[in-house]
Amino acid sequence: MTVYVVGAGPGDPGLVTLKALELVRACEVLVYDRLVSLELVAEAAGAARIARDGLSQEDVNDLLVHHGRRGRSVVRLKGGDPFVFGRGYEEVEALAAAGVPYEAVPGVSTLTALPGLAGIPLTSREVAAQVTVLTGTSADGGDLDYDRLAGTPGTLVIFMGLRRLAHIADNLILAGRRVDEGAAVVSQLSLPGAEVRVATLGTIAAAAHGLRPPAVAVVGDVVHNASRLHELLAAA
Amino acid sequence: MTVYVVGAGPGDPGLVTLKALELVRACEVLVYDRLVSLELVAEAAGAARIARDGLSQEDVNDLLVHHGRRGRSVVRLKGGDPFVFGRGYEEVEALAAAGVPYEAVPGVSTLTALPGLAGIPLTSREVAAQVTVLTGTSADGGDLDYDRLAGTPGTLVIFMGLRRLAHIADNLILAGRRVDEGAAVVSQLSLPGAEVRVATLGTIAAAAHGLRPPAVAVVGDVVHNASRLHELLAAA
Repeated sequence: MTVYVVGAGPGDPGLVTLKALELVRACEVLVYDRLVSLELVAEAAGAARIARDGLSQEDVNDLLVHHGRRGRSVVRLKGGDPFVFGRGYEEVEALAAAGVPYEAVPGVSTLTALPGLAGIPLTSREVAAQVTVLTGTSADGGDLDYDRLAGTPGTLVIFMGLRRLAHIADNLILAGRRVDEGAAVVSQLSLPGAEVRVATLGTIAAAAHGLRPPAVAVVGDVVHNASRLHELLAAA
Repeated sequence: MTVYVVGAGPGDPGLVTLKALELVRACEVLVYDRLVSLELVAEAAGAARIARDGLSQEDVNDLLVHHGRRGRSVVRLKGGDPFVFGRGYEEVEALAAAGVPYEAVPGVSTLTALPGLAGIPLTSREVAAQVTVLTGTSADGGDLDYDRLAGTPGTLVIFMGLRRLAHIADNLILAGRRVDEGAAVVSQLSLPGAEVRVATLGTIAAAAHGLRPPAVAVVGDVVHNASRLHELLAAA
């Protein structure tokens, strides 16, 4: 048998893939993240269901290797896509190192769901030819390289905790990004409580007040397209 | 009724979302791209099925507005995710401008399926904190800004035609990216003919010889993780 590292999509149970649902229904062990919908977890009716909450990354790796070695059908279910800042790669490496067969099943990522669901394109013919994606802390756990980011053309998409937002916006401005550049925060994408707040880099921290996690920030003038669509619809 | 702009995923029929399948099965008009699987198109048994091939983008926009205005349930089915360089945004703008209700249904993008299916992470703790995504031609249809790209840290993911690859690799090297930097081309991701060729920026054009579209290029040392996983499994 195999350990399947599976993306559950951004939260809407309809945005799960056919393959993910089939694997969840058939598995013997399900290890799932907090952001995965409870409807989907409930589909694993016959399985041992283990919430990942409270386990360290090392514990999770060990758990997957343990059950995988015993030949059980294991599904590791993660919110969004497991490999877009989801640490799925670390789990896959642990499985490979232990000689346990695994298979990755990609899901709908928050990153690529943003344009459709929040009305914010990642790129656009007029304002941004490229998009750069990062987490709110750098690879070594420290702060971001703001000078580099100030000079990076196009859109920035930042996966981060909401309480880091003011710090990140301030430092992007200090490093030279325009204070009136478009910025948005999207919270709970695809869920019933989804919210999009569009502002500028200078005002986004205040505008995002009260939003609930998970959230993602978008910096760049593409965010104005979200309001443009509403205006087009209203005027039509 | 509504016009649904729907992502079909990278090609594997299992990587379609539940919502996409449900909408395809129920629609009256299906407008589909060449890269969409025929199994999925066949699910729209009762619908008028219109291949997008041979239609201009303007024709497609007009078609969606035409059927949407008549209150038909329309599915616009696109390969991958409609909004990641998929021009879905132009279609949604045309619908909004005509006052036709629409809904976006995101799909699994080739971009985010790469790490899981090709074993190439977009970022990694050791070698790349961020990833920049672009198409092989700039926003105005001209060439890329190679000087900027040479100075952009982290991974580059380039959606492009295979015949542009040598030109792009040469110009990235001329602008200052390392000739021995890792580079890979992934062709037909998630399909039975999927292939991953890993090389360096200096050798990638030759290494990609004979690959079939669609393809995407990855520039950065994260590509070496693909071979590392194979070595880990072989050594375990």
